[in-house]
Amino acid sequence: MAELSVRSVLVTGANRGIGLGFVQHFLRMPKPPQWIFAGCRDPKGQRAKVRLCSDLPCVGSAEVSDPASIKAAAAKVGEHLGGSGLNLLINNAAILKVRTLDAETLEDMSEVYTTNTIGPLLMAQAFLPLLKKAAQGSPSSGLSCSKAAIVNISSNGGSISSLYAWEIIQSTSYRCSKAALNMLSKCQSLAYKEHGILCVALHPGWVQTDMGNSPGQVPPTTVDESVQGMLKVLSTLSEKETGAFLDWEGKVIPW
Amino acid sequence: MAELSVRSVLVTGANRGIGLGFVQHFLRMPKPPQWIFAGCRDPKGQRAKVRLCSDLPCVGSAEVSDPASIKAAAAKVGEHLGGSGLNLLINNAAILKVRTLDAETLEDMSEVYTTNTIGPLLMAQAFLPLLKKAAQGSPSSGLSCSKAAIVNISSNGGSISSLYAWEIIQSTSYRCSKAALNMLSKCQSLAYKEHGILCVALHPGWVQTDMGNSPGQVPPTTVDESVQGMLKVLSTLSEKETGAFLDWEGKVIPW
Repeated sequence: MAELSVRSVLVTGANRGIGLGFVQHFLRMPKPPQWIFAGCRDPKGQRAKVRLCSDLPCVGSAEVSDPASIKAAAAKVGEHLGGSGLNLLINNAAILKVRTLDAETLEDMSEVYTTNTIGPLLMAQAFLPLLKKAAQGSPSSGLSCSKAAIVNISSNGGSISSLYAWEIIQSTSYRCSKAALNMLSKCQSLAYKEHGILCVALHPGWVQTDMGNSPGQVPPTTVDESVQGMLKVLSTLSEKETGAFLDWEGKVIPW
Repeated sequence: MAELSVRSVLVTGANRGIGLGFVQHFLRMPKPPQWIFAGCRDPKGQRAKVRLCSDLPCVGSAEVSDPASIKAAAAKVGEHLGGSGLNLLINNAAILKVRTLDAETLEDMSEVYTTNTIGPLLMAQAFLPLLKKAAQGSPSSGLSCSKAAIVNISSNGGSISSLYAWEIIQSTSYRCSKAALNMLSKCQSLAYKEHGILCVALHPGWVQTDMGNSPGQVPPTTVDESVQGMLKVLSTLSEKETGAFLDWEGKVIPW
């Protein structure tokens, strides 16, 4: 199996949890990417576990759902890259609001959708020229994550057919946003195939993060295990899998 | 096959197209509902094809995504019904914006989701007490649309696995909103089963309406055919089908 080998990657929501795990794993690779862009909402915020700006070229406190902020981040990343493209965009930033169906509100439904679904759409739009450039600059044919890819971190909570763990956590706003994100990934896979860009939705597992932790229950998967699994999965993907919905072990999840 | 027999029904988006078709079909039934509530955005607007308020008890210009307006409509409907419940809530109101993926904006994504997904959620929340009352007042066991049901008018455009007609119309905002609506329907089916309320997502077909018509192409299905088909499907549903995604001819659509 080919190692994932990218010159440049951008990860949103990189100040903690799975996003931070991605950044750390990329840094630890035998041949790390030349550019790691760590997008985070508030790099100086109380809940940020590292001060990313001191370690890495950082796109600043890009709000994933603010078009102007995203465009500014794309311009800044473009400057860093000089003439190179961006190989890998990992749309990881997301929020979860734990609510019963009866307690969902217009405001929560909107906020969760804006961050979890519209954000990834706007990110892909803004970084598309850089992703295209990476694809055009690659000598390999076909699609791969080493060439150019959009990875949307989704959730099996967004699987309509299984409605995984409904008895434990309803969170309809989150489930709707992830089902919509899966739809977005499929749309992106069709629209961007001609540009040589692979698109995939990944379920990271139930992971020991601020989001995954819940009172009285320890999630079964560590950030390290999840990220290592996802990177392994990403390294195996080709044009056959573009538009797929896979978990961190490579298994297909039903829509 | 049992006829659909309801004492009360509310249809949103009833000023034209499929919503108006539902109202007309209910009025034409051998034994029409005692109460038909026709929700519409602007009953006096230029594009409204009937002045519903003159013919029917109307909930007024309920904006399907305005919580205060919806609560006021529910209170008004409750008054009309006296002590009776509401048998059937048909969430039909929806908008479509024809855009390529690259032209989608934050504003359009938000507006379409608010109307097509959050609206049906808020409607179901507000009318839940009346739907429960209808279920409690019914002598029949099990679930049926004659007893108490939420019908979400979805679209095969929201089928993630098929991405129907992508080459003709991308409209990612619409597709995401309908995939999310399908998720909502599934969530509602689990949450409201214990209250005796059936929930289903229906694809009305490609129908000759303002939304369905497109330059140079005539949709294959008339409003009459679509509505007649959907009413026939609704009359056959039981607890086995709650949470399903069906088309106007009763065929299961993949998520």
